[in-house]
Amino acid sequence: MEDVQSGAPQVAVSIDKVGVRHLRVPLWVRDRTNGRQQTVATVDMGVELPSAFKGTHMSRFVAALDTWNEEIDYYSIKSLLQDVKKRLEARKACVVIRFPYFIRKPAPASGITSTVAYQCCLTGELGEGKMEFLLELDVPVMTVCPCSKAISNEGAHSQRTMVHLAVRMSGFAWIEEFITIAESSGSSPVYSLLKREDEKYVTEDAFAHPCFVEDVVRNVAVQLQEHKHVTWFTIEVESMESIHNHNAFACIERTVR
Amino acid sequence: MEDVQSGAPQVAVSIDKVGVRHLRVPLWVRDRTNGRQQTVATVDMGVELPSAFKGTHMSRFVAALDTWNEEIDYYSIKSLLQDVKKRLEARKACVVIRFPYFIRKPAPASGITSTVAYQCCLTGELGEGKMEFLLELDVPVMTVCPCSKAISNEGAHSQRTMVHLAVRMSGFAWIEEFITIAESSGSSPVYSLLKREDEKYVTEDAFAHPCFVEDVVRNVAVQLQEHKHVTWFTIEVESMESIHNHNAFACIERTVR
Amino acid sequence: MEDVQSGAPQVAVSIDKVGVRHLRVPLWVRDRTNGRQQTVATVDMGVELPSAFKGTHMSRFVAALDTWNEEIDYYSIKSLLQDVKKRLEARKACVVIRFPYFIRKPAPASGITSTVAYQCCLTGELGEGKMEFLLELDVPVMTVCPCSKAISNEGAHSQRTMVHLAVRMSGFAWIEEFITIAESSGSSPVYSLLKREDEKYVTEDAFAHPCFVEDVVRNVAVQLQEHKHVTWFTIEVESMESIHNHNAFACIERTVR
Amino acid sequence: MEDVQSGAPQVAVSIDKVGVRHLRVPLWVRDRTNGRQQTVATVDMGVELPSAFKGTHMSRFVAALDTWNEEIDYYSIKSLLQDVKKRLEARKACVVIRFPYFIRKPAPASGITSTVAYQCCLTGELGEGKMEFLLELDVPVMTVCPCSKAISNEGAHSQRTMVHLAVRMSGFAWIEEFITIAESSGSSPVYSLLKREDEKYVTEDAFAHPCFVEDVVRNVAVQLQEHKHVTWFTIEVESMESIHNHNAFACIERTVR
Repeated sequence: MEDVQSGAPQVAVSIDKVGVRHLRVPLWVRDRTNGRQQTVATVDMGVELPSAFKGTHMSRFVAALDTWNEEIDYYSIKSLLQDVKKRLEARKACVVIRFPYFIRKPAPASGITSTVAYQCCLTGELGEGKMEFLLELDVPVMTVCPCSKAISNEGAHSQRTMVHLAVRMSGFAWIEEFITIAESSGSSPVYSLLKREDEKYVTEDAFAHPCFVEDVVRNVAVQLQEHKHVTWFTIEVESMESIHNHNAFACIERTVR
Repeated sequence: MEDVQSGAPQVAVSIDKVGVRHLRVPLWVRDRTNGRQQTVATVDMGVELPSAFKGTHMSRFVAALDTWNEEIDYYSIKSLLQDVKKRLEARKACVVIRFPYFIRKPAPASGITSTVAYQCCLTGELGEGKMEFLLELDVPVMTVCPCSKAISNEGAHSQRTMVHLAVRMSGFAWIEEFITIAESSGSSPVYSLLKREDEKYVTEDAFAHPCFVEDVVRNVAVQLQEHKHVTWFTIEVESMESIHNHNAFACIERTVR
Repeated sequence: MEDVQSGAPQVAVSIDKVGVRHLRVPLWVRDRTNGRQQTVATVDMGVELPSAFKGTHMSRFVAALDTWNEEIDYYSIKSLLQDVKKRLEARKACVVIRFPYFIRKPAPASGITSTVAYQCCLTGELGEGKMEFLLELDVPVMTVCPCSKAISNEGAHSQRTMVHLAVRMSGFAWIEEFITIAESSGSSPVYSLLKREDEKYVTEDAFAHPCFVEDVVRNVAVQLQEHKHVTWFTIEVESMESIHNHNAFACIERTVR
Repeated sequence: MEDVQSGAPQVAVSIDKVGVRHLRVPLWVRDRTNGRQQTVATVDMGVELPSAFKGTHMSRFVAALDTWNEEIDYYSIKSLLQDVKKRLEARKACVVIRFPYFIRKPAPASGITSTVAYQCCLTGELGEGKMEFLLELDVPVMTVCPCSKAISNEGAHSQRTMVHLAVRMSGFAWIEEFITIAESSGSSPVYSLLKREDEKYVTEDAFAHPCFVEDVVRNVAVQLQEHKHVTWFTIEVESMESIHNHNAFACIERTVR
């Protein structure tokens, strides 16, 4: 059968990335507490395509992912990309893996544990040299408004606020390290299971630490700047304001070293 | 050219609804304050198809919508459905129109006005007799947790809470009537524009009226039961709990008369 | 500490359902081929609340789900609901579990296998008697347009088409049975991994079986009516028409016995 | 009342962008055919915040948008940003406006016209000098697979394919120019209303011009490179493959001059 893809294109332009998107697969991911945990991932994969070829061979991405039976981490992503480069005879390959990461988290007063899910995304890009590696993470926190607290006779509006991190690193760090950084930067962490004594604790703790999205983004920035492996980051904090039907946001991007 | 649709199907089963979905068009909608307002709608349209015909004629829905140049209300939806029934020689037709409805709303202390958007959905179904008509509406409110307030030395968690109404009526009612019902049923309405004095007002008002999703759904239910035209309703209240990454919800469905 | 929830409400109205939504947890699900498979689920849980109580105890849902360590099936959902009823002293409880279900599927010509994900949703409602149980399933297929094929000198437009099933049953059936029914009702099944010989096979097979959304919904309906355990179903077929930016759809709902 | 925002932050870090997101408002947009058209927009607005201030004044964004009564174009966005900078005493301001843009489009054989919606996004960033301006546009097209066509005895799979453009310019260009570029780069444009003669035309035209996502992205790139005002672009083409439940994509980014 004719290999249409390997023919010459009508227009000789090189393509930065071409591939497949939204493959859903069950995968294992490296886990600090238990060694590894199982999750479900949505995967995008692509390669660079030189101007001489009409098309890439899309089925080879799916075959590479299908035979990849390692748990997700820096090294296994690199070996997946090496396999993709080889199968597709490409100079450059990339993969994006999105998945929920689960942690057992104790409630702050009762100590009772429950499961919390954090949305993660790992992106690897491999050309000739070192793999470019990006960790993205969504961490929900609670924020109590300092302005509302200062001007009101009673109370202050609070809301769920999402901290979105994107981090480049020079060495290995656990997902848990960044969750801790984000959760310590709002008025309070959020939990799946809170008994009454825990709800009292969270409320009082949050009201003792009111913060704007501006405060949250700065608190995260300072900690990421001090992290020994972080070389670059962006932070986006977005709060679902309880007094509005729109959101407030704040962003900081920095190259650390 | 062959009219494949008008041929006999391989399987002689009647189809409840067949048609088109997600047509986006600019439309006018009837407005209590200004007579009418312009919006953008997403429209689904369908007809019943007898077992004798292989297919419906999808282009006729688009043609009917395209020539419909009335502002959205009960009567114009009925005339659209009559046109659809005729064009498609159908015994039964339905249309679903989703659109944001805009209201100028004054802030509670300063009185300064701004635009607030409420997501609406109108569904009409026309067979032989009277048109079945359903109004759906999403109204955001603020809720302050009564438990958190009662047990904590200071504060209480609050959050944005969505009130979703679906209402069947025996006579005409304005969208604004249902917005008022929903907004009076939480701890406070939400606003687009709040000056400092307004934020103080909203915070104190909300903390003076703490309510669970259970309270909100009941407060709405009681008012819908007393509305002179409402014959049936469902209410779904969902709060984006600021102490959790999951939501709380409460639902009531009632046939009123 | 005060138990605000157990107090009397201001408005004495019973609530149909109150609970939590969008809990994400890793779970096991019963699997025809391998006994069981792991997946990630999004879970909603609720109970009926009598008019005498101000609120439900939301944390008990999370505790019940957290201690539930069985694989998802009819019987385990029933035991979860029995536990929820007991913990919350409720007359009626319900749970909705959404998850991707993974199947190894051979390509039609080469026989090479790969993983395909099907979105599932199981709903259980338990009052005094038998549990109400609903299986929902999204199965993508390919459709080739019979009209376009009949009137054109060459080709016919095709598209990805989603078959959404909701089924009530009187006895046990595998998810795989309904996937097979849906996949045999379009122009061709879809696959994750297709070698060139498979792509030729799928194209020719699909063009030999052109069908409208009307044909697909009827083909599924006939098979569900003949299934020995199905007592009620709705089918919604929606095709992402490649010649339009809107979709075509067809629905059939039937009580079988 | 205390102005908490104007106080000093605990952590003296400057913030790149802080503001509001997801405000929904009705707006007018400049239109090549009719001078202007009304639409509904979702708006994000932000400013840079120096390290000396704890917070920004979020209500001023809403006030600025509320008094802005011009139709959306390059110049009006610039004047909105000048107003935002002044109100918030900021060195830098940005705005993102997302909206559907409607065009009356004639069917290719019958000439019958209907409305097609294209999702647009305009971003303006204004610091000391010239405004940075970005136009983004989603244009759906149809693609027929060249490989499937070459290897099959009959037919070829086709699908709806989204062309996403992001363009920076040195001078004025109409949205319509970029729609034309994208629609001429696939196998066929898509339409809202097609009579039978049009469906025949579109099918035959598409099958006479089979193309991969690779071909589409290259066809668009060549035309954007030749556009007299384009200085930079990214193109992402994503096809909802009818033989898979995943998508194929191709991306090109270029600085033109």
